[in-house]
Amino acid sequence: MAASPLKVCIVGSGNWGSAVAKIIGNNVKKLEKFASVVKMWVFEETVNGRKLTDIINNDHENVKYLPGHKLPENVFIHRICDEISGKVPEGALGISLIKGIDEGPEGLKLISDIIREKMGIDVSVLMGANTANEVAAGKFCETTIGSKVTENGLLFKELLQTPNFRITVVDDADTVELCGALKNIVAVGAGFCDGLRCGDNTKAAVIRLGLMEMIAFTRIFCKGQVSTATFLESCGIADLITSCYGGRNRKVAEAFAGAGRTIEELEREMLNGQKLQGPQTSTEVYRILKQKGLLDKFPLFTAVYQICYEGRPVQEILSCLQSQPEHI
Amino acid sequence: MAASPLKVCIVGSGNWGSAVAKIIGNNVKKLEKFASVVKMWVFEETVNGRKLTDIINNDHENVKYLPGHKLPENVFIHRICDEISGKVPEGALGISLIKGIDEGPEGLKLISDIIREKMGIDVSVLMGANTANEVAAGKFCETTIGSKVTENGLLFKELLQTPNFRITVVDDADTVELCGALKNIVAVGAGFCDGLRCGDNTKAAVIRLGLMEMIAFTRIFCKGQVSTATFLESCGIADLITSCYGGRNRKVAEAFAGAGRTIEELEREMLNGQKLQGPQTSTEVYRILKQKGLLDKFPLFTAVYQICYEGRPVQEILSCLQSQPEHI
Repeated sequence: MAASPLKVCIVGSGNWGSAVAKIIGNNVKKLEKFASVVKMWVFEETVNGRKLTDIINNDHENVKYLPGHKLPENVFIHRICDEISGKVPEGALGISLIKGIDEGPEGLKLISDIIREKMGIDVSVLMGANTANEVAAGKFCETTIGSKVTENGLLFKELLQTPNFRITVVDDADTVELCGALKNIVAVGAGFCDGLRCGDNTKAAVIRLGLMEMIAFTRIFCKGQVSTATFLESCGIADLITSCYGGRNRKVAEAFAGAGRTIEELEREMLNGQKLQGPQTSTEVYRILKQKGLLDKFPLFTAVYQICYEGRPVQEILSCLQSQPEHI
Repeated sequence: MAASPLKVCIVGSGNWGSAVAKIIGNNVKKLEKFASVVKMWVFEETVNGRKLTDIINNDHENVKYLPGHKLPENVFIHRICDEISGKVPEGALGISLIKGIDEGPEGLKLISDIIREKMGIDVSVLMGANTANEVAAGKFCETTIGSKVTENGLLFKELLQTPNFRITVVDDADTVELCGALKNIVAVGAGFCDGLRCGDNTKAAVIRLGLMEMIAFTRIFCKGQVSTATFLESCGIADLITSCYGGRNRKVAEAFAGAGRTIEELEREMLNGQKLQGPQTSTEVYRILKQKGLLDKFPLFTAVYQICYEGRPVQEILSCLQSQPEHI
């Protein structure tokens, strides 16, 4: 085992990147397989008149995105330029922690596919019921790594697992990534239910129908074998549940149901201008479903989009429960 | 189709029986297949100095268990004696709406099996995310009928379905019934989490591990093919979710975590002496698992029992998350 230790670089320094940096920084100290210096790429910003990179390098704390949590000392910051692709060595492995999807010519593109194509490297994904603040606080969370090359997934598991951050590796990587994006649409539907003061059972029916549509959509998008078992992992039901009971998609949707304001207005008021992922993802998904003539097979996804952007009454989230197709 | 119409009898007059009587009473009026007179067997009690049967017969309202909801006029009450088994015609079909399990020589016995054996009739089951009050109020709920004879399940679907009470029929009847009992154990675990002020993600992990143990336990108990898809029906995840966020098992368990009182004391204080199903079911399940040497494969079910009855600290609900086996 004379191979030189594997170098780890974290690209991104938001609250999620910072929480994961804390885990990785501690883990690499204990694992000979990994180099003890971890680099972090930071998008330069000024906070209280100081550069964010300076603050993180000197104070070991991301005061902007994860205040109160000191990063381990070995997470040094290395400013990487916009174009990192040319500088990434052959054989490097990537893992995407981004929950969301992008627009593509066919209406939807996985973030991991973009990275894979741009960088020419294997990319795994990490999704699950874990929010940055709870992970950083060391509260017990589970997560799922999806990796087309199981060996790579297991390597990332070694790098990232702690007793309170429990990882399962599956090979159904696209399903894992789609779960992270699609559950936000369902959370919007659950928020509408809350806003309409529906009963607990009605809300559970929305969440269940949402899960059925997540599975059905993944089957269509992945064109191949999709394992139902993946939806029972943390990236599936667990993340769906937390998003439908906590989470900002649910919260903004609840407010939307009670107010005469648009999603954009609520994003400005409630999220300080940050974009809500659920409505955005519903737009991409709606485009694909419409193109394929499948809107009637996805009444919940369709209703969420139309309620958010086409003035369909919020109450109609309930009629899609009555008209849902049989999902087998 | 000159066959005489099928007669329907509801045995039991609690809030769930009354809610279902309301549905059935309305449905039989529209369906020629069924006789328009529906009989209801009531355990005689005295309410405000009047017999409960008299009140239901004359006022069409179960003032004790479902106040405020008038039963349709065709639900007449017929007092049936304790021993109905001898009087049930050959070829009669039963459906059990009871969520729970009973003790048997091997530690656990399905209610449907008891009815089946005592009455010598085919028995289906109905389980799902539906509480009596929300069903009676006409709020949208889903439910699952499990029937070993699909034809019988479909007949009960005809009798019971309404636009706001949506039914799916599956043949995995024992799984459906076990879901209705086992989810109560998980709800106790979720309540402990709430009492300990765990994060949303930790609670989601408890619910997910609980679902995994429900599946694994059902596989052992049913000794045969168990379909994962059944756990995605209303009887599975949907009922589990409502029980873990609402429901009295969760509520009492939350109180238990914060107080130095026993489960029995809390039942007396909070439930007016009614028995909580979760702790009771955990006792039956624990007995089976211990007998089979499988306690370590079911850390959550085991912890719930031991916390409720053997003085194990509530905090240990978290350590079972860390030590859980891989569920495939």
